[in-house]
Amino acid sequence: MHWNPDAEADPATLVYTFGGAAPVASLAPGTVLSTWTRDCFGGRVRSTADLASQVCDPRYLNPQTGPFYIEGAEPGDTLVVHFLSIEPRHDWGVSTTVPFFGSLTATGLTAMLHEPLAERTWFYELDLTERLVRYSALDTAFQAELPLDPMHGTVGVAPPLGEVRSSLTPGSWGGNMDTPEMRAGTTCYLGVNVEGALLSLGDGHARQGEGETCGVAVECAMDTVLVVELLKAVPTPWPRLEDDSFIMTTGSARPLEDAFRIAHTELVRWVAELIGLSTLDAYQLVSQAALTPVANVVDTNYTVVAKFPKALLPGVDVMGGLHRRLRATRHGRP
Amino acid sequence: MHWNPDAEADPATLVYTFGGAAPVASLAPGTVLSTWTRDCFGGRVRSTADLASQVCDPRYLNPQTGPFYIEGAEPGDTLVVHFLSIEPRHDWGVSTTVPFFGSLTATGLTAMLHEPLAERTWFYELDLTERLVRYSALDTAFQAELPLDPMHGTVGVAPPLGEVRSSLTPGSWGGNMDTPEMRAGTTCYLGVNVEGALLSLGDGHARQGEGETCGVAVECAMDTVLVVELLKAVPTPWPRLEDDSFIMTTGSARPLEDAFRIAHTELVRWVAELIGLSTLDAYQLVSQAALTPVANVVDTNYTVVAKFPKALLPGVDVMGGLHRRLRATRHGRP
Amino acid sequence: MHWNPDAEADPATLVYTFGGAAPVASLAPGTVLSTWTRDCFGGRVRSTADLASQVCDPRYLNPQTGPFYIEGAEPGDTLVVHFLSIEPRHDWGVSTTVPFFGSLTATGLTAMLHEPLAERTWFYELDLTERLVRYSALDTAFQAELPLDPMHGTVGVAPPLGEVRSSLTPGSWGGNMDTPEMRAGTTCYLGVNVEGALLSLGDGHARQGEGETCGVAVECAMDTVLVVELLKAVPTPWPRLEDDSFIMTTGSARPLEDAFRIAHTELVRWVAELIGLSTLDAYQLVSQAALTPVANVVDTNYTVVAKFPKALLPGVDVMGGLHRRLRATRHGRP
Amino acid sequence: MHWNPDAEADPATLVYTFGGAAPVASLAPGTVLSTWTRDCFGGRVRSTADLASQVCDPRYLNPQTGPFYIEGAEPGDTLVVHFLSIEPRHDWGVSTTVPFFGSLTATGLTAMLHEPLAERTWFYELDLTERLVRYSALDTAFQAELPLDPMHGTVGVAPPLGEVRSSLTPGSWGGNMDTPEMRAGTTCYLGVNVEGALLSLGDGHARQGEGETCGVAVECAMDTVLVVELLKAVPTPWPRLEDDSFIMTTGSARPLEDAFRIAHTELVRWVAELIGLSTLDAYQLVSQAALTPVANVVDTNYTVVAKFPKALLPGVDVMGGLHRRLRATRHGRP
Repeated sequence: MHWNPDAEADPATLVYTFGGAAPVASLAPGTVLSTWTRDCFGGRVRSTADLASQVCDPRYLNPQTGPFYIEGAEPGDTLVVHFLSIEPRHDWGVSTTVPFFGSLTATGLTAMLHEPLAERTWFYELDLTERLVRYSALDTAFQAELPLDPMHGTVGVAPPLGEVRSSLTPGSWGGNMDTPEMRAGTTCYLGVNVEGALLSLGDGHARQGEGETCGVAVECAMDTVLVVELLKAVPTPWPRLEDDSFIMTTGSARPLEDAFRIAHTELVRWVAELIGLSTLDAYQLVSQAALTPVANVVDTNYTVVAKFPKALLPGVDVMGGLHRRLRATRHGRP
Repeated sequence: MHWNPDAEADPATLVYTFGGAAPVASLAPGTVLSTWTRDCFGGRVRSTADLASQVCDPRYLNPQTGPFYIEGAEPGDTLVVHFLSIEPRHDWGVSTTVPFFGSLTATGLTAMLHEPLAERTWFYELDLTERLVRYSALDTAFQAELPLDPMHGTVGVAPPLGEVRSSLTPGSWGGNMDTPEMRAGTTCYLGVNVEGALLSLGDGHARQGEGETCGVAVECAMDTVLVVELLKAVPTPWPRLEDDSFIMTTGSARPLEDAFRIAHTELVRWVAELIGLSTLDAYQLVSQAALTPVANVVDTNYTVVAKFPKALLPGVDVMGGLHRRLRATRHGRP
Repeated sequence: MHWNPDAEADPATLVYTFGGAAPVASLAPGTVLSTWTRDCFGGRVRSTADLASQVCDPRYLNPQTGPFYIEGAEPGDTLVVHFLSIEPRHDWGVSTTVPFFGSLTATGLTAMLHEPLAERTWFYELDLTERLVRYSALDTAFQAELPLDPMHGTVGVAPPLGEVRSSLTPGSWGGNMDTPEMRAGTTCYLGVNVEGALLSLGDGHARQGEGETCGVAVECAMDTVLVVELLKAVPTPWPRLEDDSFIMTTGSARPLEDAFRIAHTELVRWVAELIGLSTLDAYQLVSQAALTPVANVVDTNYTVVAKFPKALLPGVDVMGGLHRRLRATRHGRP
Repeated sequence: MHWNPDAEADPATLVYTFGGAAPVASLAPGTVLSTWTRDCFGGRVRSTADLASQVCDPRYLNPQTGPFYIEGAEPGDTLVVHFLSIEPRHDWGVSTTVPFFGSLTATGLTAMLHEPLAERTWFYELDLTERLVRYSALDTAFQAELPLDPMHGTVGVAPPLGEVRSSLTPGSWGGNMDTPEMRAGTTCYLGVNVEGALLSLGDGHARQGEGETCGVAVECAMDTVLVVELLKAVPTPWPRLEDDSFIMTTGSARPLEDAFRIAHTELVRWVAELIGLSTLDAYQLVSQAALTPVANVVDTNYTVVAKFPKALLPGVDVMGGLHRRLRATRHGRP
């Protein structure tokens, strides 16, 4: 199915939350969805002369595409989203500093008496053929090419407890996790909290570093093809990911060690269940085998990812082998 | 005006969020409101035999009275709530441990591999004449009397950015700050984020220690009389309090030092503005004069209060002298 | 006994650590010690024109008086220090901002890309008769009088595990806890880690706010009289305090919630032991009765104090009634 | 040069600190040192029947080999340690849980009221030919093979400010950073704080996961060959690493976001200096290019590593090209 957001829509009418918005369409499990997402600035930052604080309304940041109502989804189920392709919609992206936002600056929560760092915008050329992202320094002539690695910063469902959360925040419902692992070829598992799950996505990044240190990746609109599935009566307390090589858990919280603790308790319990290990045996195995890249240290909650190699799970059918099956989905590029 | 919540209402129909609920009544600024609030368990924990995890539905904790629509309130204004009286509605209160909730246990966010601490319920007699709270140990015969000091753990408005937040969470909108300073005689200043402000309150405590260490105070239903006022075009970024002796700021965040930083930057800026000091002179004065009691280290965000003595503000009219004026409001007990 | 530090000593020869220095004198338990301590700047900041970064060597900050070898003290004992009097040695004190030090600024650990806040020095007149501290703003004519409340920021012993720690750091050995509770009339209990304990003290404050927000109190040299005692075979894992009204525990760690957790687990265990309560009954009682002032959010570790009213401990002899006995010690002023 | 620690030495005579010990030998810059290190248990945990709390004295954990006096090293210089080979000394390693130690348990600092997790020991076969580490579950028959990836958890020098720090703690002096990046082929840069630097190393790991979740890696004695160099008048505020593909910075602090902030400010400043970028241009480039693996979330301070690809530094001579030169050092296996 194709869902084509209205490119001319008034920013005030877009969706900036998980939960709290009426679904734009209904998807049956198994549906291949082809759609696109605006960049986090709603397309208003287009050159080094555009400063986010001048061209954007702070109430209208990080617009999401969706929400999509998933037929049959109920609390206690797991929504499965497999990304078939995530491709920049244009040949450019932007990044910026934002006053009092980022990990190496005072913020509204890590409140201090400093003046803000200078606000600047960087413009990136995206070479979709060579699969490169071209960085140009603002203050000198230095240029560099980095690998294109498109991903969604934001994928999530409606939160539990009747909450509605800003699209700037990650948590147990997914949301703004900002992990580079959310790329094409990855399967994302999200616990369902409300009837229909209410899946939304956005915040495309042509690439980002681990931690998203300045708070803003190489932001771009994305053409995305995904397939949704539903695991009935399988709860997923915190978002999980799977690619061909790793199973992954996420934790989003503050301080950062709590995000680590969530991701690793989830990974220990998942590995214990998959292999049939005792909790302590799984704790030991995860302690020696896990990779732990930081995802973001800038959003309202910070996110850590814990990865466990599937090579250590021989013969184990993760989530009923869904990833392998979805990976084989036929699809055309959007 | 009297607002009498329906004592027989189905728990599923009560309000458990800030934002996201239709107002139950409309109040003009200047209105004296007499109402009552349920305890955080909705009245279902009534003896040492009642365990919260058995008698309560986890979706229905901490019901709020309200929301009240404040006439004329718009984003950028400050809602003023002065508590004329807060009195336990009955002669008993309860406290409990709750599995994986509290400051000295693993929790859902500070996630660990421990088994939960034992779940227990303590029953308190409230002596409203002697103004005492009677503690009885469960495992020995020890008893103790503590001063009655009734307060609301939860007072708040609808949050910004279209968010709806659980009544278990404190933040810039107020909410579950759990500070004993929210007692009769205190004025609370809350920034307005949506038209009508949407004031709610609940979570009465016959008393609590600073930090609310086990996560649960001496919980009780409350009869409360308050008066609301409105300061037009006065923004209040984080909740502020005032009593006869102190002006106070609050910060709610994780880690706890960020709650401290918010409260103290707010206090530095407020003192600078009230006295006409430079920021650094105010930073210095606050550094030598402030009291800083911890409010809670148990909720989804932690709360710190910073207090500055009004004795150091001679001749200064805080918020136009509103506290002094509201303090003199005539009222009968509910 | 009198111990008179050499007022003319070369700063390079003073003691700036807990542990790692040879004792200057030996004290038998029961000894009344009369001595004095330098201010944290070693007396080099004397007017608003003196900036710490210009007049002080960063290697020589917070000199301590001591260490004193306590006769008979062995690991596993508790050293008891009761402060009979703490009086400013002169009629002035100073406070400053320090580049990248304090709670509302980026620091070496909370590392950011900001420029430092401006460095300034405030000069305080101390009125020892009226018991007042006189604040004068630097940028306006505002002045204010605050109560004199002299205390030691730093009291401690040699740390465990063979460590030597800077006098800028608090921890289980005491050190730079920066709590205003360390005033005359208070008894401090410190676990002994090495033979002779090696007690040092310094960092006198004419007063400070809770949190010591800018990182520097009203710093002054102090004349101090104290009495030492020894509790054999009584371990004290983290420093404890006692005055006429409260027993108190301390925790020093980062993040601030860990300091809170240490102080409150220690208080729960102490109350359980003193009253003969089960751990959960004590957890409940502390949750309703404790006061929890923040001590410092600026040092290498942050410090929280948890206070429990002695009124709830009727007939209980804390530490064998030592505080009451030491409180009655006869002494002249130094 | 060969330095052969005394295998029969009394544990009480070994070195368990950075700083505070007399050098065992003196090394001229350029020296190739061949030596070996004990495992963190001093060799006392040798089978699944050995529990650390029973067979080890808590005062004698993580013995270090050294310290080595580096000729000519003075404060303000950088000590360079390049690891030519790190090989397990035996064909076995062990890992354990330790009561109240690890990231998914209450600890002495994250103090709680839980009972400790069960103490267990896992025994690993090391296949030095196949380069494998063999895990065996304790409670089931599951076995798994993980890649051998030998490294040193602990490498450091004497700290600044006259401090002596336990070998269990990482910080600006290096120490117990527990990063898997400290493998053969890596060059480590450490700022010198005292004359002679006083290099020590230990805590060999046959491999570890990122975060060292349970607090204990696959611990083993190591045969290690390294070469030392000295960069005069080059300060290094926090330890830096370099391998053939990345330059790396480290931060060790609590909370974990402060470790992240240290590592990333250091990386931003290093990249700015190496390329000649403005600070903001470097902040932007690092934000898109950095990898950020967690090293440990278990020690007294937590450690984060930030990595920047040398592919983005064409023609740049990091530290005068020292890594490339040392990489070519001829050496025999010990």
